[in-house]
Amino acid sequence: MAIHPQTLGVSIDDASSAPAYQQIATQLRKEIERGGRAPGERLPAIRTLAVALGLHRDTVAVAYESLAEAGWVEARVGAGTFVRSTLASRTEASGRSRRASSGPGGSVSASEPESGSQPAAEREIGLALAPQVERLMTLENTRPRYATREDVVALHRLVPDPRFYPIDEFRECMDAALREEGPELFSYAAPEGDPELRRAMAERFRLFGIRHAPEEHVLCHGASQGISLALRLFTQPGDQVAVEVPTYANVLSALAGLGLTAAPVAMDRQGPDPDALDRLLAKPEVKAFYTIPSFHNPLGTTAPLERREQVLEIAQRHGVPIIEDGFEMDLRFRGPEVPPLAALDDTGIVVLLFSFSKSLFPGVRVGSLSARGRALEGLVTLKLATDLSDSLPLQAGLARFVESGAYDRHLARIRKVLRSRHRALDDALESSMPEGTVWTRPEGGYQRWVELPGEIDSHDLLPEAARAGVLYSPGTLFMPDARPSSAMRLTVSGADEDEIRRGVAALGEVIGVGGGARTAAGRRGGVHL
Amino acid sequence: MAIHPQTLGVSIDDASSAPAYQQIATQLRKEIERGGRAPGERLPAIRTLAVALGLHRDTVAVAYESLAEAGWVEARVGAGTFVRSTLASRTEASGRSRRASSGPGGSVSASEPESGSQPAAEREIGLALAPQVERLMTLENTRPRYATREDVVALHRLVPDPRFYPIDEFRECMDAALREEGPELFSYAAPEGDPELRRAMAERFRLFGIRHAPEEHVLCHGASQGISLALRLFTQPGDQVAVEVPTYANVLSALAGLGLTAAPVAMDRQGPDPDALDRLLAKPEVKAFYTIPSFHNPLGTTAPLERREQVLEIAQRHGVPIIEDGFEMDLRFRGPEVPPLAALDDTGIVVLLFSFSKSLFPGVRVGSLSARGRALEGLVTLKLATDLSDSLPLQAGLARFVESGAYDRHLARIRKVLRSRHRALDDALESSMPEGTVWTRPEGGYQRWVELPGEIDSHDLLPEAARAGVLYSPGTLFMPDARPSSAMRLTVSGADEDEIRRGVAALGEVIGVGGGARTAAGRRGGVHL
Repeated sequence: MAIHPQTLGVSIDDASSAPAYQQIATQLRKEIERGGRAPGERLPAIRTLAVALGLHRDTVAVAYESLAEAGWVEARVGAGTFVRSTLASRTEASGRSRRASSGPGGSVSASEPESGSQPAAEREIGLALAPQVERLMTLENTRPRYATREDVVALHRLVPDPRFYPIDEFRECMDAALREEGPELFSYAAPEGDPELRRAMAERFRLFGIRHAPEEHVLCHGASQGISLALRLFTQPGDQVAVEVPTYANVLSALAGLGLTAAPVAMDRQGPDPDALDRLLAKPEVKAFYTIPSFHNPLGTTAPLERREQVLEIAQRHGVPIIEDGFEMDLRFRGPEVPPLAALDDTGIVVLLFSFSKSLFPGVRVGSLSARGRALEGLVTLKLATDLSDSLPLQAGLARFVESGAYDRHLARIRKVLRSRHRALDDALESSMPEGTVWTRPEGGYQRWVELPGEIDSHDLLPEAARAGVLYSPGTLFMPDARPSSAMRLTVSGADEDEIRRGVAALGEVIGVGGGARTAAGRRGGVHL
Repeated sequence: MAIHPQTLGVSIDDASSAPAYQQIATQLRKEIERGGRAPGERLPAIRTLAVALGLHRDTVAVAYESLAEAGWVEARVGAGTFVRSTLASRTEASGRSRRASSGPGGSVSASEPESGSQPAAEREIGLALAPQVERLMTLENTRPRYATREDVVALHRLVPDPRFYPIDEFRECMDAALREEGPELFSYAAPEGDPELRRAMAERFRLFGIRHAPEEHVLCHGASQGISLALRLFTQPGDQVAVEVPTYANVLSALAGLGLTAAPVAMDRQGPDPDALDRLLAKPEVKAFYTIPSFHNPLGTTAPLERREQVLEIAQRHGVPIIEDGFEMDLRFRGPEVPPLAALDDTGIVVLLFSFSKSLFPGVRVGSLSARGRALEGLVTLKLATDLSDSLPLQAGLARFVESGAYDRHLARIRKVLRSRHRALDDALESSMPEGTVWTRPEGGYQRWVELPGEIDSHDLLPEAARAGVLYSPGTLFMPDARPSSAMRLTVSGADEDEIRRGVAALGEVIGVGGGARTAAGRRGGVHL
């Protein structure tokens, strides 16, 4: 499994005066010219080549981009980078790209287009996309694509188990809302969303010590839109945003899409390192700090009260806003509640994100942003300018669902499932993982972090694990600089107790057999967290 | 009604070496200091003061911003700019702003908070918001707020009449989708949205000559989100986007929120002026052209085939993408269909926006972006990074609604209503408006453009019209530079035939009585289409 740069057809001459990216581009171009890489052939994945050559993946990405600009290759969403058919047919090639073979089989991407019979754009013009969109597409291309075998144990997925969706109860609530509130729900809503749901949420939030009024909660289209809005509230392209290492993978996409850069803050089991955070927030180019204090994603850890107070004090002292992601706030299954930063803050510096996607189901697409003062006003204005408002029928149905007590009943059930599945995962890890493996023990949420012993890059084990019938998220996905990681994120959302035991047993075998030998070439740095 | 600068307490000394904004800021500051403007008092609206002084409103906005930065005044969303209570309590004041009186009564804003009993942020920190958010908030503050009297005739609103929403039929479709497709609809969707609805839309789009495959339509959260995504696809902050003069008001907000500038293209009754467009798209800083060829908003005009071909040729020649807004595409009530730019284009340079908000109801929050090649890939990636996906329950319900024929039946009904209401509006304008008034005669959609004779600024007539029982949208709203306009947009979406007659009669009286005298001070330029 060790990657030999030679087999990838590229090598770096350290003695050469040409920059590495140019060396890569030149070698690939020559190979394409002499027919050594056929039209339609896929280039090595950026990440693979970077690891093989001991380079940062940006270096390889720049090489590929320069080849693409010159018309030699083209990137395809969810598929990779491919050799173009001929230079002469440049405009045509990009027009046909979506109908071409999507490369090596066995993996699919959610965003991969169906093959269709659409007529070609006859003489396609190569449009210039925004640079941040190009970067985003490059980033998305590096994301692993997972096999879709039915019998694979999905320990990688952070999607609540559809077996527990309270569809019928929810449908009744929505139906009642539509019947009773009628046409009004089908007009434009205020950008802040359904007042009834905001009232219900304000009341529930008091359980966490959050005293925001109903009008200080702005509903949005899932926490994912909330992240985009909160980032746009405080930043403009070129700015930096402090994020934890590791952090939620999609926040890295959101940063790329907005032309922002991640400023990394080291984590320990208690949360972000206070000294590192203090140094970082002192920099004027750092405009906000994105943090997940409870049931961290991917770590699964929860910051204790003392660390929260430290973090808050630092941000307040520097006047840097905190974007607190409470996406699993409602999913504590053991231990006492720790107040969110938004409950501890009395200065209005915290914007709190909440979501029903993990505690209920994602399809309702309802999240919220809680804020005060100018930040609140800015969010409302931004939401209005972004998409006017969300859909009231779902929000009004959800309001009834929460008010009827159905949501709390559902939570009680889900927490029990979580407790039992995490116990199964603990037992399975204990009995199946090699000596030296360590993992976190969450008090809530679906995910936890498992660190393998030695110099393994968990990303390299993924194809073999998939063949063995188990999927996980490699640690590198959660690294702002995409560095290799010996860790992986496991979740209990998509697998029951039996499946967990089966999946972890398979994982243990894959690691036990080949783990020691799988030291990736070009590794910089060791094991993180 | 003529505005006297003196009564606003500010005047400009042309002989002074101080810039105008500084003169304004200094005079207001002195007045506040000596108690001439009490804490809580509202400053004149930016637009009003700009018109009165014959200045661009940006000049006044800069003056207000400098006062706000110094802590003398504060802006409140949807309310205006207010004198702060004391400088000493600066941090406190901004914390309490949302609970303070929202200024002169009689008008409300959709985004105005309810009064509540939330505890204050005890020691609020003045967070720095992104500059483009600040600009957006300033822009929103200049939008007129409409009275909410029940008996007022709403000729300003572009919201389909709730009396015609086919709620029951739609509810049945959604219910069937939820029952039959079950939990899958409540998980995360692909960023492109429900495949069934995309198939149904691709089929309907063939009626317009649009041959895009189902996978070339990306569903989004209303055309409003579509506009944001399309703009982000091609631009970064600081770029320019060509827009028609006049154009859709919310696209101006979207531009401001993204840090973009509008590059104006003059319009005639056939569409954008080809020569002006050619000159503008030659500029490298202009990254896209936003246009509404059918049932233009606010004009109500439809570009003929020949002009469309010209526009397309110009954009293709310069390689500048076109964002074609087809938000009312389905609402033609007379005349033969004219193919959208997206149907004429064979180069992939057009991104087409569509929406169900006007043809069905806004609450479904479903729009689409049709694109090809790299633009399509970029849109999917951007949608994923922005909010993962939309809500499937509504999309799946809508797919059934379209496939069952219910949507086409609904359209037939709405087109009949539109035809009849527009006829009533024509008759009413004919009999009630003063000599010299001219208006457009739409072939589809809800809106049309009415130009008053003489040097009237239609914005100045609005308060009196509201008192007389009728509302309209003043032309200045649709001007990228917010210049005064003698025109107004009237819509037939919120008023039936009787109401239209009553509203236009009231309007005619307001204009007839005072129109001639209402020449605003400081007008630059004449009447703009």
